[in-house]
Amino acid sequence: MTETQDIRPGETRTDAPPPDDATLRFIGTISTPFKTRAACPRQGRHDGPLCDVTVFEPWVAALDGIERYGVIELLYWLDQSRRDLVTQSPKSDGRTTGTFALRSPVRPNPIGTSLVRLEERDGAVLRVRGLDCLDGTPLLDIKPDRCAYSPPAPSKPGV
Amino acid sequence: MTETQDIRPGETRTDAPPPDDATLRFIGTISTPFKTRAACPRQGRHDGPLCDVTVFEPWVAALDGIERYGVIELLYWLDQSRRDLVTQSPKSDGRTTGTFALRSPVRPNPIGTSLVRLEERDGAVLRVRGLDCLDGTPLLDIKPDRCAYSPPAPSKPGV
Repeated sequence: MTETQDIRPGETRTDAPPPDDATLRFIGTISTPFKTRAACPRQGRHDGPLCDVTVFEPWVAALDGIERYGVIELLYWLDQSRRDLVTQSPKSDGRTTGTFALRSPVRPNPIGTSLVRLEERDGAVLRVRGLDCLDGTPLLDIKPDRCAYSPPAPSKPGV
Repeated sequence: MTETQDIRPGETRTDAPPPDDATLRFIGTISTPFKTRAACPRQGRHDGPLCDVTVFEPWVAALDGIERYGVIELLYWLDQSRRDLVTQSPKSDGRTTGTFALRSPVRPNPIGTSLVRLEERDGAVLRVRGLDCLDGTPLLDIKPDRCAYSPPAPSKPGV
């Protein structure tokens, strides 16, 4: 995908060695209406299009209880992103910003996070609104929203 | 760390093969006052203790511009966590909940996310409040908070 591999004036990259500090397993896949990076919104909206999040076995039973939450956090792997840019120029105007001061998909560990509205669970599929990622993006994790979350155990001295 | 490896009555695990779908690089390290899992709070608080987030080279320049944000999102690798539990029993009462309906550190891809208050940047070090992870936790990513974020480019037709 050349559109995600271009480097703009003023951007800097690193020749860091290939990453091997830890490994990920894809636990599902995300279907969205966004077929190219240009079609992806800058940020998902809770009144955006309905998207299907499909969880693979053996992780379907790990969804049990998710129906209690109206807002959930999704983590996914931005598998079309280059990983070597230290600074980026999103405006193509030569003004550069550090990668960690942007929510660009281009980052050393291209993990996207979104808070999405959970509309329905149907077996292995969650129907959600609020995503901004490409169709076919691999799923890494699902968590209840922090705000909606009541700890299931009493608080501890460390709190 | 046996305290993080125990399995409780009612919990279920999977024998899924070792993960190898994607690889991570650790881009820094997190210092907190929490030396054991029992000492970690259930959820970080913005009036919690000051913690140092140290970014490794070559990624220090990727922090440029982060000072504009009062709240940032941190992603980190919960390297003491087992990864095979499909359901969990946080209360030890036999009532089980799916892993994805919990914010437990035990998950197939043990990535923690926190929204923290950025108090100061000093070179490669960010001083933040709001973390709940173990001292020495490897850092994966830093992003501006969604809410505080003004897209650096105009919105697009896909929005």
